[in-house]
Amino acid sequence: MKILIIGASGTIGNEVKNQLAQDHEVICAGRNGADVKVDITSEDSIKKMYKQVGKVDAVVNASGGAHFAPVSELTPELNEKGIGSKLKGQINLVLLGLDYVNDNGSFTLTTGIMMDDPIPQGASAAMANGGVKAFVKAAAIEMPRAIRINSVSPNAVQESWERLEPLFLGFDPVPAARVALAFKKSVCGAQTGENYEVY
Amino acid sequence: MKILIIGASGTIGNEVKNQLAQDHEVICAGRNGADVKVDITSEDSIKKMYKQVGKVDAVVNASGGAHFAPVSELTPELNEKGIGSKLKGQINLVLLGLDYVNDNGSFTLTTGIMMDDPIPQGASAAMANGGVKAFVKAAAIEMPRAIRINSVSPNAVQESWERLEPLFLGFDPVPAARVALAFKKSVCGAQTGENYEVY
Repeated sequence: MKILIIGASGTIGNEVKNQLAQDHEVICAGRNGADVKVDITSEDSIKKMYKQVGKVDAVVNASGGAHFAPVSELTPELNEKGIGSKLKGQINLVLLGLDYVNDNGSFTLTTGIMMDDPIPQGASAAMANGGVKAFVKAAAIEMPRAIRINSVSPNAVQESWERLEPLFLGFDPVPAARVALAFKKSVCGAQTGENYEVY
Repeated sequence: MKILIIGASGTIGNEVKNQLAQDHEVICAGRNGADVKVDITSEDSIKKMYKQVGKVDAVVNASGGAHFAPVSELTPELNEKGIGSKLKGQINLVLLGLDYVNDNGSFTLTTGIMMDDPIPQGASAAMANGGVKAFVKAAAIEMPRAIRINSVSPNAVQESWERLEPLFLGFDPVPAARVALAFKKSVCGAQTGENYEVY
């Protein structure tokens, strides 16, 4: 398969790349140092990426962010980061990418544990995660040409634990390599409409 | 209690108003024919509404829409309707309204069955519903001054069944009055972070 991975330079994206590159042709896209440059908050940038890469069998996204702030300090402006990046960025990868994915291909997006097991300051990220999860479940029932769509919902990962622990006190972080397996299941399996929880 | 209902002229909002007005002071806001004019897609309009209404004990939203289209015809532009209205409109009612809600007050937002039981053409609405549900769950754990936040997730309602049935074939519609009870539970009860499914 020819697989496009957006965000392959991140902790999880890099493990996904390692996992899939063993048996497949992998093209990495991202803001820096990737085969193809892309900023998922820009529709034009997404369109350019797809034009440059051409037809693929799978699109994997491991990028996207949101602003962390207590809900009483979260403004509509600060909430825009999660809207533009983790929510719309991911959904636009699907809406603008459908014509570039071969029959029986797939999209795999990223959600996260915070929508199920919320943490302080995580309301905006949770919103984006929940929006993506619901979109995936609903879009799956009418994707054209047997294209599948799933999301992976990772816990905090061990590799980033030093930075993340203050936000995720009491959580039991998982190895990024275990998260990567869920992406592999989505890309190489046959399920659709799933949100794989790696908790 | 003094209760602000946005969207009280809609089928569900009207039942919520009837239910709550029996024992409480109700102020109705909406785009047309309400006590106070508001367009929830505009931050300025939301701010104006709160300034006009002043402090309340509960904010109930029964408004917000999304575009219905097959996912292969859904563009980023068409998806903006759900982003701006049902998703951001509702979340901005909370972010911009926190200072106007009294201690121990509440917000009650609206999601919908499509995120759990998807229908063709419903991916954008499902996205908005899922985003609001996750935001509510996460925001609830850090709302200030014991303010609560819940959402109500209605099935299609019997009163709109003639119009809705072609989209919801095989669904078992519920009376809007039953949906209104879930709003009453949210406003008058003590739970927080819940998404009340009226299916």
